[in-house]
Amino acid sequence: MNPSRTASRVDLASAQIINLIQEKNLQPGDRLPNEQELSTLLNIGRGTLREAVKQLVTRNILVVRQGSGTYVCEHMGVPEDPLGLTFIKKGPELAISLVELRLMIEPEMAALAAERITSEQKKELTIRCNSLEQLLNAGENYINADALFHCYIAECCGNKVLQNLMPTIITAVSLSIRESGDGFRARSAYEHHCILEAICRNDSLGARYSMITHLNVTRDYFAQQEYLSRVVWNGK
Amino acid sequence: MNPSRTASRVDLASAQIINLIQEKNLQPGDRLPNEQELSTLLNIGRGTLREAVKQLVTRNILVVRQGSGTYVCEHMGVPEDPLGLTFIKKGPELAISLVELRLMIEPEMAALAAERITSEQKKELTIRCNSLEQLLNAGENYINADALFHCYIAECCGNKVLQNLMPTIITAVSLSIRESGDGFRARSAYEHHCILEAICRNDSLGARYSMITHLNVTRDYFAQQEYLSRVVWNGK
Repeated sequence: MNPSRTASRVDLASAQIINLIQEKNLQPGDRLPNEQELSTLLNIGRGTLREAVKQLVTRNILVVRQGSGTYVCEHMGVPEDPLGLTFIKKGPELAISLVELRLMIEPEMAALAAERITSEQKKELTIRCNSLEQLLNAGENYINADALFHCYIAECCGNKVLQNLMPTIITAVSLSIRESGDGFRARSAYEHHCILEAICRNDSLGARYSMITHLNVTRDYFAQQEYLSRVVWNGK
Repeated sequence: MNPSRTASRVDLASAQIINLIQEKNLQPGDRLPNEQELSTLLNIGRGTLREAVKQLVTRNILVVRQGSGTYVCEHMGVPEDPLGLTFIKKGPELAISLVELRLMIEPEMAALAAERITSEQKKELTIRCNSLEQLLNAGENYINADALFHCYIAECCGNKVLQNLMPTIITAVSLSIRESGDGFRARSAYEHHCILEAICRNDSLGARYSMITHLNVTRDYFAQQEYLSRVVWNGK
């Protein structure tokens, strides 16, 4: 088994394609030249080119639509699992690590959003908050709506790096809701409303504190669980 | 050009290999069964298996050593460019976005490290700080040493998710040093020393404030540049 045989040639071809995207400033959804054109343009053999395209599909940089062509992927190279969570053991320890990370990022993010949000964005954030609230009150699955609300706050900051970190936050949201056995539902609508209102009145400090209040419920839950398991263990 | 033809079969095979790594709790550097064994074990054809391995190599999950075999990659699936920086235009805007992210994460990270650092880790952090200081004083390239110091603080927190975010911080460090034309060198040794000392005396607040002091030099520089360019532009 030797899939690394032509690795360096394929890697080089991938780098050439990335350069092409950057130089031509291609955007998500833009179509690449067809195989023959690309092969001539970059002076790459067809076999190597195909391998390079496969690699870039895996890296969320390109997407191939059957019978149509090769396009720049809407994810623009942001991997689905940026922090390698696949290989970190699921459970309370990961949940605590993720909520620690969220508590570092999201209160400051809410504060920035309160400073920078536009009128249009206030409307959209309100819509997302309402959708979330409906699901919460109806006793339905609200994980996706919760993630969409938090991700939109990142968008309101106008910080592209922050936006690209959001796939991780989505994982964190869904993991903490699952690990806690739906225990946060009762308070969640009120907490999200406080965050929304603080951001919409451009109250930067208020947005920060509302976000801390919201996330600390999760942190507190897992820290308490961890403390209890330690006390019980020591008591044996 | 149709590299997505067998995508779903290959994706499925990749997922099976990931499952295998998780179930057997394989660690970085551990060797996978050979092609024949894997093919039988997972009931996958050789062609599909090879494609899946290529995909997992691209995703930093596997590494193929010629003539030796396939191993679990030391990066454990953490991509080299977790936040898709490749496709964000380089320049002051990206530098500001990155320092904003660093200011969210690193002060809290320093505070956590001050709480959790072990005696062994204090020694290692001191060594890294001294190496950095020597390079700074000698007028040499200190980008790598700077990154290693900041990454080790993440390690002292014992938060795996945080550690996996560090490849991004490394990019941020090198980008802001390059963009600023070496302007931070003079103060850098003193600032890093303050951070080291606060963490080593387990002074959580001190560590947070020292890190803010350090990073705000960078933020201030870029914000000032941006302000000046705006004022000059408006004045025209």
